[in-house]
Amino acid sequence: MSHFELYDDENTLLMIPGPVFLHPKVQRILSRPIFGHRTNHFRGILAECEEMLKGVFGTNGTVFMLTGSGTSAMDAAVRTFISPKEKVVSFIGGKFGERFADIAQSAGANVIRVNVEWGKAIKPDLVKKVLEEHPDAKAVTITHNETSTGVLHPLPEIAKVVKKYDAYLIVDGITSVGGDYVKMDEWGVDVMVSGSQKCLGIPPGLGFVAISTELESVLEKMEKKNSYYLDLKTYYKYWKKKGDLPFTGSVTLFYALYESLKMIFAEGLEARIQRHRKMARAMRKGFTDLGFELFAEKGYESNTLTAVKYLPGMSDNEFRTRMQKHGVLIAGGQAHLAGKIFRVAHMNMTGEREVLTVLAVAELVMHEMGVKPKGSGVKGAISEILRE
Amino acid sequence: MSHFELYDDENTLLMIPGPVFLHPKVQRILSRPIFGHRTNHFRGILAECEEMLKGVFGTNGTVFMLTGSGTSAMDAAVRTFISPKEKVVSFIGGKFGERFADIAQSAGANVIRVNVEWGKAIKPDLVKKVLEEHPDAKAVTITHNETSTGVLHPLPEIAKVVKKYDAYLIVDGITSVGGDYVKMDEWGVDVMVSGSQKCLGIPPGLGFVAISTELESVLEKMEKKNSYYLDLKTYYKYWKKKGDLPFTGSVTLFYALYESLKMIFAEGLEARIQRHRKMARAMRKGFTDLGFELFAEKGYESNTLTAVKYLPGMSDNEFRTRMQKHGVLIAGGQAHLAGKIFRVAHMNMTGEREVLTVLAVAELVMHEMGVKPKGSGVKGAISEILRE
Repeated sequence: MSHFELYDDENTLLMIPGPVFLHPKVQRILSRPIFGHRTNHFRGILAECEEMLKGVFGTNGTVFMLTGSGTSAMDAAVRTFISPKEKVVSFIGGKFGERFADIAQSAGANVIRVNVEWGKAIKPDLVKKVLEEHPDAKAVTITHNETSTGVLHPLPEIAKVVKKYDAYLIVDGITSVGGDYVKMDEWGVDVMVSGSQKCLGIPPGLGFVAISTELESVLEKMEKKNSYYLDLKTYYKYWKKKGDLPFTGSVTLFYALYESLKMIFAEGLEARIQRHRKMARAMRKGFTDLGFELFAEKGYESNTLTAVKYLPGMSDNEFRTRMQKHGVLIAGGQAHLAGKIFRVAHMNMTGEREVLTVLAVAELVMHEMGVKPKGSGVKGAISEILRE
Repeated sequence: MSHFELYDDENTLLMIPGPVFLHPKVQRILSRPIFGHRTNHFRGILAECEEMLKGVFGTNGTVFMLTGSGTSAMDAAVRTFISPKEKVVSFIGGKFGERFADIAQSAGANVIRVNVEWGKAIKPDLVKKVLEEHPDAKAVTITHNETSTGVLHPLPEIAKVVKKYDAYLIVDGITSVGGDYVKMDEWGVDVMVSGSQKCLGIPPGLGFVAISTELESVLEKMEKKNSYYLDLKTYYKYWKKKGDLPFTGSVTLFYALYESLKMIFAEGLEARIQRHRKMARAMRKGFTDLGFELFAEKGYESNTLTAVKYLPGMSDNEFRTRMQKHGVLIAGGQAHLAGKIFRVAHMNMTGEREVLTVLAVAELVMHEMGVKPKGSGVKGAISEILRE
């Protein structure tokens, strides 16, 4: 008899912060035949994707579509707009803030790392204070939604501060774009990066770099080459000349992206964001009512991911292994938070059904582990779902 | 903006009594290329399917695989083994019991309809009494698991009674085969019918008729033709001669069946049935704890479907429409039970995750409708899931 698990790797509800579970319509597209990428038909798909992505990023600039992970997009943003020796101020409140600093450092920049305690928000005042000390900064990197801590940093207010200095604002929007408010042009964000497997609802494999129209002019005049595959000038040239990608794109994923973006606009961006926010409130209320404490600073909680502190004595490994055995995959803590928190994403197509499922299965696992729930997480979530 | 619903017809958890939701492995097979049906390769698939089906039906006889619905299999069983004017005793405790009588009548049989109140079990004593009155019956039809009422009729005990008379026992096992105990040879069932979209875990489109080895001899000597497409003698001839189907089979569905049956035996029949029984107990406890009453006679509850009585004043249409809006499709009552009960199937790959999801969403809908839950259905189900 071969090994059988009811909830195997094809039958698991993905509530990790990417890859997220796909809408079946998108899943279905993945089995469609592939097509030639140097064709007018495929260029049409790319053009429509970029047009829709501009809407999601909130910019009239350009959105570059890279075949690579979100990190490839971060790397491309940094390597294209920052030259060796230039000063970069990296605000860090978690693992992904750190990654941006590491990337800048690997690109030869003079990186000033500004750390806030993981779980806390980066406040505009801090940004102001640091930039006053570093008026020569060529760029500021920051994470919009910090996936490692469940914190949504106050980007609009931060952008307002950075605007007063002569520095590019380069933002990691990997887990906010498509799930929460992102208004690059309105807020004054110069460069924003995202990935395909989070709030944009397709598998991992595509990275996006959106730039403002001002940065387009910078790109046009730019000479330097600090990368080959990830040099956005090359992407810009091909894109403007013939609406093409410079290198072979992941054709299947672009078809999936096209399908997913159409669904995003069928729902409507505002409605989609409000759904994410409501589901986040329900998830937070549910876990709080079960007896847990949230990890993120109050008032700065992410709307796409909830980080929850373990109760004393609860084993991270046991909790998540049991959740997975019952068909729900969630994430643990990263770096020094390993074992201390667990993280549940509520991105893309997450609705009340998924929120309730996660909370009900968590309650089951608590009972299995001998941890008495304080109250009903399902009941708590229902009260938020029904709140007008 | 086009119309958008988060839980559209591709993103709905099917908890109706067929079609059931498919395991993603089976779903995936449906997009594979089709193949020629008159090939040795496809005959190999058919042969393995039939071998596995014999295990599921618990017979050493033959399982005929028809391209048609479960009803086509009922029709084939009746038309093949019953001639016009022959007496058929049909035991009826619900809509599907009625259908068997209707089919026999349409085949020209002299049908004796024996009705029990819907929701009650057909007891061996009743069968004995009726057969004593009709010792000339050529066949007895009965439903093993009555989907319209959520009753599992006591087939082993009934078969023991019928065995004493010279009548074929023809059983509708459409919602039991693959989900609950079915032991044709051990119990003495002559003919048993099933469909593909219930506990066998594939889309609708295939029907199955299993016959005992004794009935094979009957079939060999049989002359009459009461049907063309549904004459099992034709199927038998093709099958024995070259392992072939007489008419073009639904190739894609046979590949799906092959995949699903392999998963059934990977889990193991006994483990699968115990899982169905545990999920049924959890579902019953959950709805009871929410404040509902079950419809089926106590002690005879189906393990693949739960029928639940609405609370006074609850609108069936509103309840089920709201459940569907939140991503869970369940069934209403049939015939005179319309509006009085709802029915939730727990077949095939239903596990604790799905049971908890249904109960949590039902609790949400109760709140929406202003019906106060007596207690937590999720908590009740958890207690059953954790019971050894």
